[in-house]
Amino acid sequence: MKDQALTEKPLDVRPPFPDSLARTPMSIAGSQQVATESVAQRAYRLDREHVFHSWSAQDTLDPMVITQAEGSSVWDGDGRKYLDFSSQLVNTNIGHQHPRVIAAIQEQAARLCTIAPQYVNEARSEAARLIAERTPGDLNRVFFTNGGADANEHAVRMARLVTGRYKVLTTYRSYHGGTATAVNMTGDPRRWPSDLGTSGTLHFWGPFLYRSAFHAQSQEEECARALEHLEQVLTFEGPDTIAAVVLESIPGTAGVMVPPPGYMRGVRELCDRFGIMMIADEVMTGFGRTGAWFAIGEAGVVPDLLTFAKGVNSGYVPLGGVAINREIASYFGKRPYPGGLTYSGHPLATAAAVATINVMEDEGIVENARRLGEEIFGPRLRAIAERHPSVGEVRGTGAMWALELVRDPATREPLAPYGGTSPAMAELTVFLKAEGMLPFTNFNRIHVVPPCNISDTDAAEGLRLIDTALDIADRYVSA
Amino acid sequence: MKDQALTEKPLDVRPPFPDSLARTPMSIAGSQQVATESVAQRAYRLDREHVFHSWSAQDTLDPMVITQAEGSSVWDGDGRKYLDFSSQLVNTNIGHQHPRVIAAIQEQAARLCTIAPQYVNEARSEAARLIAERTPGDLNRVFFTNGGADANEHAVRMARLVTGRYKVLTTYRSYHGGTATAVNMTGDPRRWPSDLGTSGTLHFWGPFLYRSAFHAQSQEEECARALEHLEQVLTFEGPDTIAAVVLESIPGTAGVMVPPPGYMRGVRELCDRFGIMMIADEVMTGFGRTGAWFAIGEAGVVPDLLTFAKGVNSGYVPLGGVAINREIASYFGKRPYPGGLTYSGHPLATAAAVATINVMEDEGIVENARRLGEEIFGPRLRAIAERHPSVGEVRGTGAMWALELVRDPATREPLAPYGGTSPAMAELTVFLKAEGMLPFTNFNRIHVVPPCNISDTDAAEGLRLIDTALDIADRYVSA
Repeated sequence: MKDQALTEKPLDVRPPFPDSLARTPMSIAGSQQVATESVAQRAYRLDREHVFHSWSAQDTLDPMVITQAEGSSVWDGDGRKYLDFSSQLVNTNIGHQHPRVIAAIQEQAARLCTIAPQYVNEARSEAARLIAERTPGDLNRVFFTNGGADANEHAVRMARLVTGRYKVLTTYRSYHGGTATAVNMTGDPRRWPSDLGTSGTLHFWGPFLYRSAFHAQSQEEECARALEHLEQVLTFEGPDTIAAVVLESIPGTAGVMVPPPGYMRGVRELCDRFGIMMIADEVMTGFGRTGAWFAIGEAGVVPDLLTFAKGVNSGYVPLGGVAINREIASYFGKRPYPGGLTYSGHPLATAAAVATINVMEDEGIVENARRLGEEIFGPRLRAIAERHPSVGEVRGTGAMWALELVRDPATREPLAPYGGTSPAMAELTVFLKAEGMLPFTNFNRIHVVPPCNISDTDAAEGLRLIDTALDIADRYVSA
Repeated sequence: MKDQALTEKPLDVRPPFPDSLARTPMSIAGSQQVATESVAQRAYRLDREHVFHSWSAQDTLDPMVITQAEGSSVWDGDGRKYLDFSSQLVNTNIGHQHPRVIAAIQEQAARLCTIAPQYVNEARSEAARLIAERTPGDLNRVFFTNGGADANEHAVRMARLVTGRYKVLTTYRSYHGGTATAVNMTGDPRRWPSDLGTSGTLHFWGPFLYRSAFHAQSQEEECARALEHLEQVLTFEGPDTIAAVVLESIPGTAGVMVPPPGYMRGVRELCDRFGIMMIADEVMTGFGRTGAWFAIGEAGVVPDLLTFAKGVNSGYVPLGGVAINREIASYFGKRPYPGGLTYSGHPLATAAAVATINVMEDEGIVENARRLGEEIFGPRLRAIAERHPSVGEVRGTGAMWALELVRDPATREPLAPYGGTSPAMAELTVFLKAEGMLPFTNFNRIHVVPPCNISDTDAAEGLRLIDTALDIADRYVSA
């Protein structure tokens, strides 16, 4: 996230870092070396010399060192603890360092780290089974990738080959990954610098009542008009030229716009009518985040392809994939699928997925996310919103919420412009970090996306901090 | 590799699998269960039900179960041992399950598995330092990705943004990855089903004396003519429209065509003359494979960007990246780089890279690859070629060699057509697997790409098997 650079300013850097965190002889207390450099200091120095960071102007960064993490907490180079209300990039659905998953990674490492995709591997097979059992409908085959971007790339390739069509429709306000097709599918400003125009990706408007593209007054109206709009776009683009409609089941970084009831079913019907593949991007929503294994399943809809990553193993080992329905799997039964990658179905990554899914099942983490949404985040965020004029809207489900901050509740002018930030948002972010929280912010929004197994106490503490921080935002509200 | 499906036929499946390999109670000897299914059997069944494999027609597969691996050996579901002369997909440069790297993964797992890209992490910093110290020239900044494909995607994006140009030149006979830009850069048949035409990727002919596109009679002539050809293509395409020339430092899967001396320097000079970025794809060649840390460095050339994956940590954890020169890093000093990914600089993956690089250094694995090439593979493969009329050419360096098999030594007609296979190649592959080897074959070639630390005994045994197998190929030689 471009504006996450904002969250990277350490607020309290007091070199030298405490030796209690040191792990190399170099910084052992009492060392004869004159210039002692702690592990955290060294990591920071080498990072500034050699690491090139995502979505950032490299010289403007002053990134926080993270030395340790557990559950919903991380510790910086000063040993200061932070409440991780971001789940990093909304991926640690089971929190940091879950002991059962760590043990499974260690065991699989001892057994077999890597094997090429053309072989059979126990961890890969079992992960595929566990995923296939949780995806809706007949999405029973899994093609594993390294992350969400390549999952979307491959899903689009499959749709293009099966339909013999090229164009792909996605929504404005979406994010689908950083590789060529994925970033061209993306409907946020991260697409612009790499926008090829010619890449066959077109954008339409999804439902979002608070900033309705359709001048709707109710969710029902928004739903009906958004579907009518999609039907019009399909008709005028030529349905026979469209390979797929690709939708985040709930748009994530773009703002947690939970689609109105019936919208996804309406999309499914349009796709069926025109022989278009429906691809659900569940990279952020999948594996418990929304209080369900998959948000699209909860909506009672079976897409043709479903992409995942992040929550599948909480990002403990890079992993993504595409769940494929029977028709598409069978299309590639006799014809070779022209795509692949060296680490497809990587044993270490899939062993982490097996352990993660079993942990989520055994500990009721999906159900907990639902409960958090219904009993804690939903009601308390709505109460917070009532106290703060800067909160234009609260929306979300499970452990996935957004506060839409505005400068003016009447005009709904955002507290930061689309694609940018503002002094208000920067101040808010700095405050939250100073208070010991890693927030997830984007443009004019704060997202509430902690681990799905965060304790009620930590959840309450995070909400308390946000409540306090919103006093800052309120000061920027006009009138 | 499409034709690797050939190598997937298990030759000796005798269910029930031996219980010695079983790890679940289900198949413990003496279990009361009537239907015992071994771990390997279960893995196979679930694979066929739920796993979608790379580059394959799914219903035609009968993939080998791999249950265990160590060094240059793997074991199948029957407990049968195979000599891995493929390094899987040419990635296990330090062999399977190196104990120091396993220990490092386990330790990092216990410490910190994942952290978002915007923070500083010790493992990521140290990996970046170790890589930057080994890349040639001023390639001192590292952007980490999940694998080679996205490394190439990001390198091309950087080149496009820095130059303000769009088109990218790559060679026929190349492979650059499976995502949209990477596969369109690819110069082998795996591109065709996803070829967008419009994606700004153009192909030219690289040097390959044995099948010279320039009717050259010597390496010197091939080099000069190939450079003249590239200059002509650049001139007629319009140098000001070209962002980058992207080359595998030695084309890998496409056939191990070691460029003649002076070629890479000539490309560098052309790029300099026209303000074009030179991108070296070292995904397969990097980290010891060619008997050097990077083949381009050995050629005395510093590219603007260098991509890597595979050998960086032997594929033990998915990892790739782009090494970036000073000019490009500084271009993105004040301007945000518009690209990124959740797992960029993943702690577990980079910790495995740190351990791998240190192991390679401590155990002299790069030097060993060079010695293997000079003392064993080079001389013995050339001797083998003299005995077998089916061997048209032997070429390679370090632990990266190819045998070009022909039906006719005079006409050089390949033993399998471009992009396909043949009964001869199939028979050869089946024989090698029956004899206990995992070979790497592509079209009409056998590649010799074992781990860079393979024992001399194992290397000799592999060569002996290939020598024997070539009797089969000889039978297909006409005349």
